Amino acid sequence: MKRFFHKPASVGYAPGTLVSVAREELRPLLLTVCEYGREQDAVERHVDTIADCLPFAPHADVTWLSVGGSHPVDVLEAIGKYLDIHPLALEDILDTSQRPKMEDFERYLFIELNMLLWDQDHAQVESEQVSLIMGDKYVITFQSCENGVFDSVRKRILEGKSRLTKQGADYLAYSLVDAIVDHYFVVLENLGDQIEFLEEELITHADPNTLQSIHELKRELIFLRKSVWPLREVIGALERGETPLFKETSLIYLRDVYDHTIQIIDTVETFRDMVSGMLDIYLSSISNRMNEVMKVLTIISTIFIPMSFFTGLYGMNFVNMPELQWQWGYFALLSFLGLTFIGMLVFFKHKKWF
Amino acid sequence: MKRFFHKPASVGYAPGTLVSVAREELRPLLLTVCEYGREQDAVERHVDTIADCLPFAPHADVTWLSVGGSHPVDVLEAIGKYLDIHPLALEDILDTSQRPKMEDFERYLFIELNMLLWDQDHAQVESEQVSLIMGDKYVITFQSCENGVFDSVRKRILEGKSRLTKQGADYLAYSLVDAIVDHYFVVLENLGDQIEFLEEELITHADPNTLQSIHELKRELIFLRKSVWPLREVIGALERGETPLFKETSLIYLRDVYDHTIQIIDTVETFRDMVSGMLDIYLSSISNRMNEVMKVLTIISTIFIPMSFFTGLYGMNFVNMPELQWQWGYFALLSFLGLTFIGMLVFFKHKKWF
Amino acid sequence: MKRFFHKPASVGYAPGTLVSVAREELRPLLLTVCEYGREQDAVERHVDTIADCLPFAPHADVTWLSVGGSHPVDVLEAIGKYLDIHPLALEDILDTSQRPKMEDFERYLFIELNMLLWDQDHAQVESEQVSLIMGDKYVITFQSCENGVFDSVRKRILEGKSRLTKQGADYLAYSLVDAIVDHYFVVLENLGDQIEFLEEELITHADPNTLQSIHELKRELIFLRKSVWPLREVIGALERGETPLFKETSLIYLRDVYDHTIQIIDTVETFRDMVSGMLDIYLSSISNRMNEVMKVLTIISTIFIPMSFFTGLYGMNFVNMPELQWQWGYFALLSFLGLTFIGMLVFFKHKKWF
Amino acid sequence: MKRFFHKPASVGYAPGTLVSVAREELRPLLLTVCEYGREQDAVERHVDTIADCLPFAPHADVTWLSVGGSHPVDVLEAIGKYLDIHPLALEDILDTSQRPKMEDFERYLFIELNMLLWDQDHAQVESEQVSLIMGDKYVITFQSCENGVFDSVRKRILEGKSRLTKQGADYLAYSLVDAIVDHYFVVLENLGDQIEFLEEELITHADPNTLQSIHELKRELIFLRKSVWPLREVIGALERGETPLFKETSLIYLRDVYDHTIQIIDTVETFRDMVSGMLDIYLSSISNRMNEVMKVLTIISTIFIPMSFFTGLYGMNFVNMPELQWQWGYFALLSFLGLTFIGMLVFFKHKKWF
Amino acid sequence: MKRFFHKPASVGYAPGTLVSVAREELRPLLLTVCEYGREQDAVERHVDTIADCLPFAPHADVTWLSVGGSHPVDVLEAIGKYLDIHPLALEDILDTSQRPKMEDFERYLFIELNMLLWDQDHAQVESEQVSLIMGDKYVITFQSCENGVFDSVRKRILEGKSRLTKQGADYLAYSLVDAIVDHYFVVLENLGDQIEFLEEELITHADPNTLQSIHELKRELIFLRKSVWPLREVIGALERGETPLFKETSLIYLRDVYDHTIQIIDTVETFRDMVSGMLDIYLSSISNRMNEVMKVLTIISTIFIPMSFFTGLYGMNFVNMPELQWQWGYFALLSFLGLTFIGMLVFFKHKKWF
Repeated sequence: MKRFFHKPASVGYAPGTLVSVAREELRPLLLTVCEYGREQDAVERHVDTIADCLPFAPHADVTWLSVGGSHPVDVLEAIGKYLDIHPLALEDILDTSQRPKMEDFERYLFIELNMLLWDQDHAQVESEQVSLIMGDKYVITFQSCENGVFDSVRKRILEGKSRLTKQGADYLAYSLVDAIVDHYFVVLENLGDQIEFLEEELITHADPNTLQSIHELKRELIFLRKSVWPLREVIGALERGETPLFKETSLIYLRDVYDHTIQIIDTVETFRDMVSGMLDIYLSSISNRMNEVMKVLTIISTIFIPMSFFTGLYGMNFVNMPELQWQWGYFALLSFLGLTFIGMLVFFKHKKWF
Repeated sequence: MKRFFHKPASVGYAPGTLVSVAREELRPLLLTVCEYGREQDAVERHVDTIADCLPFAPHADVTWLSVGGSHPVDVLEAIGKYLDIHPLALEDILDTSQRPKMEDFERYLFIELNMLLWDQDHAQVESEQVSLIMGDKYVITFQSCENGVFDSVRKRILEGKSRLTKQGADYLAYSLVDAIVDHYFVVLENLGDQIEFLEEELITHADPNTLQSIHELKRELIFLRKSVWPLREVIGALERGETPLFKETSLIYLRDVYDHTIQIIDTVETFRDMVSGMLDIYLSSISNRMNEVMKVLTIISTIFIPMSFFTGLYGMNFVNMPELQWQWGYFALLSFLGLTFIGMLVFFKHKKWF
Repeated sequence: MKRFFHKPASVGYAPGTLVSVAREELRPLLLTVCEYGREQDAVERHVDTIADCLPFAPHADVTWLSVGGSHPVDVLEAIGKYLDIHPLALEDILDTSQRPKMEDFERYLFIELNMLLWDQDHAQVESEQVSLIMGDKYVITFQSCENGVFDSVRKRILEGKSRLTKQGADYLAYSLVDAIVDHYFVVLENLGDQIEFLEEELITHADPNTLQSIHELKRELIFLRKSVWPLREVIGALERGETPLFKETSLIYLRDVYDHTIQIIDTVETFRDMVSGMLDIYLSSISNRMNEVMKVLTIISTIFIPMSFFTGLYGMNFVNMPELQWQWGYFALLSFLGLTFIGMLVFFKHKKWF
Repeated sequence: MKRFFHKPASVGYAPGTLVSVAREELRPLLLTVCEYGREQDAVERHVDTIADCLPFAPHADVTWLSVGGSHPVDVLEAIGKYLDIHPLALEDILDTSQRPKMEDFERYLFIELNMLLWDQDHAQVESEQVSLIMGDKYVITFQSCENGVFDSVRKRILEGKSRLTKQGADYLAYSLVDAIVDHYFVVLENLGDQIEFLEEELITHADPNTLQSIHELKRELIFLRKSVWPLREVIGALERGETPLFKETSLIYLRDVYDHTIQIIDTVETFRDMVSGMLDIYLSSISNRMNEVMKVLTIISTIFIPMSFFTGLYGMNFVNMPELQWQWGYFALLSFLGLTFIGMLVFFKHKKWF
Repeated sequence: MKRFFHKPASVGYAPGTLVSVAREELRPLLLTVCEYGREQDAVERHVDTIADCLPFAPHADVTWLSVGGSHPVDVLEAIGKYLDIHPLALEDILDTSQRPKMEDFERYLFIELNMLLWDQDHAQVESEQVSLIMGDKYVITFQSCENGVFDSVRKRILEGKSRLTKQGADYLAYSLVDAIVDHYFVVLENLGDQIEFLEEELITHADPNTLQSIHELKRELIFLRKSVWPLREVIGALERGETPLFKETSLIYLRDVYDHTIQIIDTVETFRDMVSGMLDIYLSSISNRMNEVMKVLTIISTIFIPMSFFTGLYGMNFVNMPELQWQWGYFALLSFLGLTFIGMLVFFKHKKWF
């Protein structure tokens, strides 16, 4: 349930109040500053306090400040004050129950996204919130744990050969969003494997556990769907180029990310269709098996109950039962019962009951 | 049913006629006036008659008149006359069966919302109508019972430190709407707990009561959904900034509330998906159990009915039944029956019936 | 079926041909003229022929001509000629199978609505078509039977104290539409009662008749829905103020009616959700009961069939059956059977089968 | 299947290639020319070759050329050349698998519609394609068989009294489309009869044939729906008056036809709802009947199996069975069994099993 | 699963990196150049290296370069450099997991489509990606295997008589897209045959394999649907004429293709409806058969279990059982049992159980 719904942390507080969320255990603060530009090689610094990284280096074209771990209120306040960030945005960064969204504050963009990760142990999708503030010369990312999704971007910056280092903060923001969306495909791939595995199980040996697995898969898809649709909205809004912070040349890259989100949604819907088809199969396989069981019972009963009647008949103790005195009565009855038995089998065979 | 549908009180009356609704028991009138401003500390007065609070204090930047309890027609008429409120709005305030809506009368906004409360005793959602009239210097709220939803707002005003006291009537209106929407999350949290509880019950010991609970949960969600969609429309209309009564600076806050309503809708839809999945699970668990019952019956019948046939066979009284005379006939039959018994068990084991 | 679909009367005729529909029995023509204005008290006249009411009184601000009963072609032609009404509109008035619609002919509006009535005897919704032609100084209503829906409006006019008498023809048209829409709530209330009644029946003693009732309720809702959606379209079109015949001051009243239609649609959809939930409950209660029946059969069979096997065993007539000769053999078997019986009961109790 | 999907004849050919479709048997060519105008009485001519009707009579206001039967390629080419028709339109006329559509070629409109007919013998809907080319002074219709749908229009023209003869080609086109749409109502009426018949059958004596009939009805509705939606698009496009070929005065008539298509769609959707409700009823009636069967089995088994156990008990051959020696033992057992029997009946009666 | 979802090849790489996809086995490179124009006859050349076909012949009006087989990165780079293609487009060409899309780069259009093929052996739909770059004087197509879909277009060009050779590159692009869309109909035709075959099987001898086939058919339709909707979007975007690269005269042809995609979507949705109807039929046929089985069991049990009780009764060994001593006791019982038997049969016949 926790994955499906959080009460926002701010419920009951004045808007813009920074409420520290103690839902997850506290994780140590992790500040990383990365500065680069056309004229300047990329430099990465790990700093201990927020004071060490403010103000941003004036000569760098782009400064990327990454705030990892639990975000203490004072760090947010310092950043908010330095860059004049709206208190509502700061509140949203702290509150990890937010729906993905994008807000344009003219001088800067505030983007909130869900990073999806596949938890191999529990075979379920985990979600982590990433907040992103992008100005014309800086990008600040907030995420609560270190999961390596941004590593490829960081590596490309530090290696310095990528197109990335020659572009502005908007291209960096795009690259980070792209890295997040790419990770959705990894999750989809794992879900696809699960579906394939279950489909095989369905045909070979479906049992109530299969149903449980189908149901769990369905829940993962509900969860995924809940995450993907707002993602599309956010990236769609960015891609429509409504904010001047994204330059024309970056927009085409956003269009590419947007296409990816559409593809993700398509796949999620296809998966849903397939899983609901599996449920139908499961249910009708239960019916089929019940049918088989019933047939066995019916065949056995229909053959032996009438035959038992005849044995009961000649087990009676009436004084005057002529058949009992016949020399070959017993054998006549045996033959009659044997013929009945065979006749019944032929009848059921004919009805294709076995 | 009462929660799902009320015939509007005005059915059969001329439009604009003030019809007092005697559906609920009469609750005593409760008038509270709260005045504050940039230059002036907040003052709260509890008054007895409407005459005591009209006209509004001219020096206050914002006057918040809260009308609690059953609204007598004369109070509404006095307010309507003083502020020149359209008769249709007054009629809607009296009628507690209204759908949430927002109407812009240029000089003032009329907003009608549903406040949702979780009734712990009956484990169901209760709804109460709140009407709100907002002018440029006043806000009037109408609610029929005291439930404390607005307490946090009132406290913030009286403490005087909040941002609230430095803003106009539009920010107060926003704060009140925000308090209402925040309360939806409390309801959602309770429903989420119910779902979690039921899902556990489903797996461990589903019985017809579980079905009843699922059905009741479904009804609560139908009810919630019916309340949330018009809420979104109302807040969406406010947020689009179509009315000049809401200043630019307040609009961003409304956008935040709007995001919350979207999140609520998302959650309600997710809950619906989950509950309908639970129904599927329940139904197939019934089928499964029926299957189990049938298997027990079939195994027992299939084993013993044929065996009984043989005992019946040798219970017959024919004069000439050679087997009966054999010295070891009885024991031969016993062995035969024992082997049949074991063979059947092996067969069903092989078929994975138990 | 008749309620769900009529072939339009004009099928196979040239457009604009006035085809008298003889579907219902003929009802006597009923002409009522009502004239009123700012300067003039309302006068109501019952006239016998259409010639008696044309031309309209020049001094009245508003003339309301109400045509009740079966509409003879000549009456329509006379009105059509006097007011220059488009032949298609006249055709639509005659044809009682029309879908609600609104057409703006510039000089006049043509509105076609369905009036819904609750038929208590058959517990079903009845529909009756009302046509309305509204010019700037007149309103003409056509309805085929007298059902009193417009009585409250007529009363308000004749009493002369209402707001109605000071307004123009547009306000009269609004009042009539409002009276029709208000009547939908009466129908909804009756359906709501039915749902409540059925829900109770479902829990206490569901039987195939309950299913039949659910199905009939569902049909009523299908029927209602078919009527309500076009109603919303019509009133929505009026409310958007696209026609200059409706003055600004009347538009706000139309918005109120429009809100009512939305509320009706909401309720119909909620009812549909509830009824489809009832069907689920019914179906799973059948399954549950079948399960119970099966359990009884299985318990009885599983206990007695093996026990009968043992009695059969010792009913055999082999010459050499040592147990039969034992002094206490019979009582040993009785004890064995008794223990089996109790063991089985404990086993089924343990499995929670009863 | 043929009714649901045709591979277009042009697959694999260059666009605009005229491919004669030999799907249906060849039908003789049937050319009918009908000329009329304000100043001129209507004349109808049946001609043998296309050369006989080209060029159109210059003095006629409207020329209606009706091409019936299989359309030979050369006729199409002649018409195409004379009126300069786009090759794609000609290709679409030949290909009878087209979806209804309307294309505006400025000088002329190309309309393709499906005419629906009720095949009484097979109780199914038949569809036939009608193509229509309308210029400012001519209308050409193409249909492959003679079904009399246009007869009423032709009759009105020839009688000369109708409004039709005083209007232009656009009004003729409207009249033809109207005749086609009117025929949909005839089909709906037949389907409605079928639904009514099946609903009665469902209640009185549902059997697997009923299911088959429901399924067939459902297919007819799928088919109908597939035909009606594009029809609505086509007429909606015409009615929005995007083409100057339709004069203002004709547009209001098109709006009337458009209303009819909406009504048809409404009815189809209502029918679908009703048929799917019938399926639910059918399925639960099967369940109900299975329940009945199971109850009979269970009652009989539960009464007689334990009683048989007791008869078996006293059929045993132990030497020492005191009850057997009792004088009234047999009658005591008979009484015991009788009481058991009655007790069971009372028990089942109490449980409302019969 | 592979058909339903591929992780894009570029996941984890910088955007615009050309990642060679080694999913399918490598296929030899196949370069074909086709040049033609108004003044010039069409020439087709098979070349070995990309250097042999660049730069394009200046005198040809249209150059069609077809790149078949696995696309080596260096070929793409050479083309990209010569025509200044955006790196994202090149990346998409390499990645065969793309969703159909169209991007307008002003100087050229980039179109990505799925070609559908029917795999007769596995009775399933195969999909292959086709990329298309269209400038004002050239069209480049990329496809990974040779399947002959474009053969008809190539033949029309080389024969030189077609309209195609007199038109520009936009008409060639249209022709290629048309060839692809036409192939969808072939796939639909095969699926239609499958549906028809299954419907017959359903009625004559449905078994669990039929369910499996229905399920597989459903999956094919899910797959088809996933392919067709984006196809419609792409062609719809082209047809709206938003790009100046498509001339007015070609747009009408695109409209024709667009109509075809709509028709395909219609058919897919109809097929889905039909297949889901088949599932209903299958499930209720299982229920019906179970009902039949249960009836047989119940009839046999209900007839013989009570009769066996009576034989057991007279098999008891009480000393005092007067009936046993009666001369005609046995025959009396036989007659009684016979009458019971016949009575039961009449009863079940009356209940229409057989």
